[in-house]
Amino acid sequence: MTTAKAAAPQWGTGYIRTISPYVGGRPIAEVAREIGMDESRIVKLASNENPLGMSPAARRAVMDALTETPRYPDNDGYALRQALAAHLGLPADWIVLGHGSSDILEMAARALLSESDSCVYSQYGFIVYQLAVQQAGARHIVVPARDYGHDLQAMAAAIEPSTRLVYLANPNNPTGTLACAADIAAFMEQVPPDVVVMLDEAYVEYLDPGLRTDSLALLRKHPNLVVSRTFSKAYGLAGLRIGYAAAHPALADVLNRVRSAFNTSTVAQAAALAALGDEDFLRRAVDVNRAGMAQFVAAFDALGLRHLPSHGNFVLVRMGDDEQAGNRINAALVKQGVIVRPVGNYGLGPWLRISVGTEAENARCIDALRAALAA
Amino acid sequence: MTTAKAAAPQWGTGYIRTISPYVGGRPIAEVAREIGMDESRIVKLASNENPLGMSPAARRAVMDALTETPRYPDNDGYALRQALAAHLGLPADWIVLGHGSSDILEMAARALLSESDSCVYSQYGFIVYQLAVQQAGARHIVVPARDYGHDLQAMAAAIEPSTRLVYLANPNNPTGTLACAADIAAFMEQVPPDVVVMLDEAYVEYLDPGLRTDSLALLRKHPNLVVSRTFSKAYGLAGLRIGYAAAHPALADVLNRVRSAFNTSTVAQAAALAALGDEDFLRRAVDVNRAGMAQFVAAFDALGLRHLPSHGNFVLVRMGDDEQAGNRINAALVKQGVIVRPVGNYGLGPWLRISVGTEAENARCIDALRAALAA
Repeated sequence: MTTAKAAAPQWGTGYIRTISPYVGGRPIAEVAREIGMDESRIVKLASNENPLGMSPAARRAVMDALTETPRYPDNDGYALRQALAAHLGLPADWIVLGHGSSDILEMAARALLSESDSCVYSQYGFIVYQLAVQQAGARHIVVPARDYGHDLQAMAAAIEPSTRLVYLANPNNPTGTLACAADIAAFMEQVPPDVVVMLDEAYVEYLDPGLRTDSLALLRKHPNLVVSRTFSKAYGLAGLRIGYAAAHPALADVLNRVRSAFNTSTVAQAAALAALGDEDFLRRAVDVNRAGMAQFVAAFDALGLRHLPSHGNFVLVRMGDDEQAGNRINAALVKQGVIVRPVGNYGLGPWLRISVGTEAENARCIDALRAALAA
Repeated sequence: MTTAKAAAPQWGTGYIRTISPYVGGRPIAEVAREIGMDESRIVKLASNENPLGMSPAARRAVMDALTETPRYPDNDGYALRQALAAHLGLPADWIVLGHGSSDILEMAARALLSESDSCVYSQYGFIVYQLAVQQAGARHIVVPARDYGHDLQAMAAAIEPSTRLVYLANPNNPTGTLACAADIAAFMEQVPPDVVVMLDEAYVEYLDPGLRTDSLALLRKHPNLVVSRTFSKAYGLAGLRIGYAAAHPALADVLNRVRSAFNTSTVAQAAALAALGDEDFLRRAVDVNRAGMAQFVAAFDALGLRHLPSHGNFVLVRMGDDEQAGNRINAALVKQGVIVRPVGNYGLGPWLRISVGTEAENARCIDALRAALAA
């Protein structure tokens, strides 16, 4: 008879035990408990959330949907998929719903990667790519970044016969870097047709129209392309968890085979449907982001801090030259009730990633940063 | 250059292509569209949902949480895990949150099964076990049922050196069968300590106290046991998607390594926290279920229909002797606006699974059944 005190076996396959679980931005409540500050006084610019909250239309939709919560969600997400199809100009069977777009990223790994396969992604690529590949037990081919961005030529060249999947973020989190439309199109021509490219466009709504890749046109041309998007950023629904993929039906079908039953909740489907129709809210979110980004950039320049030009709702700013610089300044910011994101787990120890908030939140952060740097 | 019209490669590893995605009970809206009946007139007893809806306290908690939805959820689920720990009398690091308990079931397969491993479960076991094993590419060891229930001795004997995981549902869906506490305890003594047993207790709240296995006591004794539970059934939160696992911390840790980031939403965490405290609602849900089960059993006996004694909030009833009997009667019920669940995908073609609803819903279903059988 065994007891809980006996040495437990090492659970999990070997590659599972190597996983360090995802660490998100610290919750306000957690920091409040730690530093003994009222939650209302804490500024969180750590998770690329929408400082405007959610669209009032989406909130009303959730309230209405609450009468339906005893029911399981519509597993096919009929109404939302129809609306997305109309929005994107694609048939509904090209759309797969996800519990956030990270669910989509993970589905691709589960569907396409077995232990003998490999996956290509970039250094500084969104960390869920690494986690998804680890979960599948597949081999990682991590391509060195160029100027902190994706080196698309090197990524195309890195594809091996065992490669079944490439993750490509555009813009990329946490670096904010962007590949131009021509480079993405050229990349797609270079990728073998039996290798799937997951184009992660979580931040696409923040882009000026002139900077966008027409990824939907690429989809029609390349049956090996998946475009993933989310309602967590510009649409402000991070707390509800909903995103989607668009892909050729044959590829959408295989993603659906590994999609968990009822992966998107009733309230998330309702909120996303309403948010999709509230273009005014989306426009305001983008405007607030543009203004806040200018506010941060001016402050960083005044403080003599190096920062990367960012195409998302966040910016990477350098706190010094040593690997601990980010953690050091972060600790000083937390003490002042300002939560940002250290990115040492990306090999970016000297940097901090700061999400763009409201004007007042950004000002609080800039003041705290000035104090931390002066100390 | 490829086009969408060109023959697409066969996407996905071979074992992924064998998956038939989960098919839930048909949504009311879908049936309403099909038969041209107003949604309000349709009775759905197909997904083992709580006919009382959700606890008013949980609904208020969701409303309050809506101010927080712009934020990502607390990935650690601090408040809910603390409350569950207190509720169960376990330390918080024994608790893992899931997007419904099916998320927990899938995490176990992802964490524990690689392509060279096997998993034991019972014939007629909840179909997510099969899907989870398929996703992992592992081998299925399906043990024939005894009297439609789990044959625990045969399951213990079926464990091979390659077996890393056993799924055990108690009560089981869709059969409603129950293993007694002594048999579960004896089973745990027989299972090798390096094989994990996932004890799926999704319906445990409906059991009379005298019929329950003290699974939490077993947990303390067996570091290879995981108990999974859900808020989707008696707690009425199916639409919000939340469940949990309890396990020895070493095992909880490996589940957390494959847990998707932010797998439970802000509103789901808030609703579950409130629902856990509303014991009055839970008691009413159990009472309504007991009364409704008696109503169905009396009607089935009057109609001369064979049914299995059920310990859940649903009952399996036999519509004839041929494999199409369930589908045939189901089609007749749908035409009358009554949705129940055919279970041919379980190899139970002659049967239908009917969820217990309110007295009025049950009566509608019984009337429709009588008409369908008379036709």
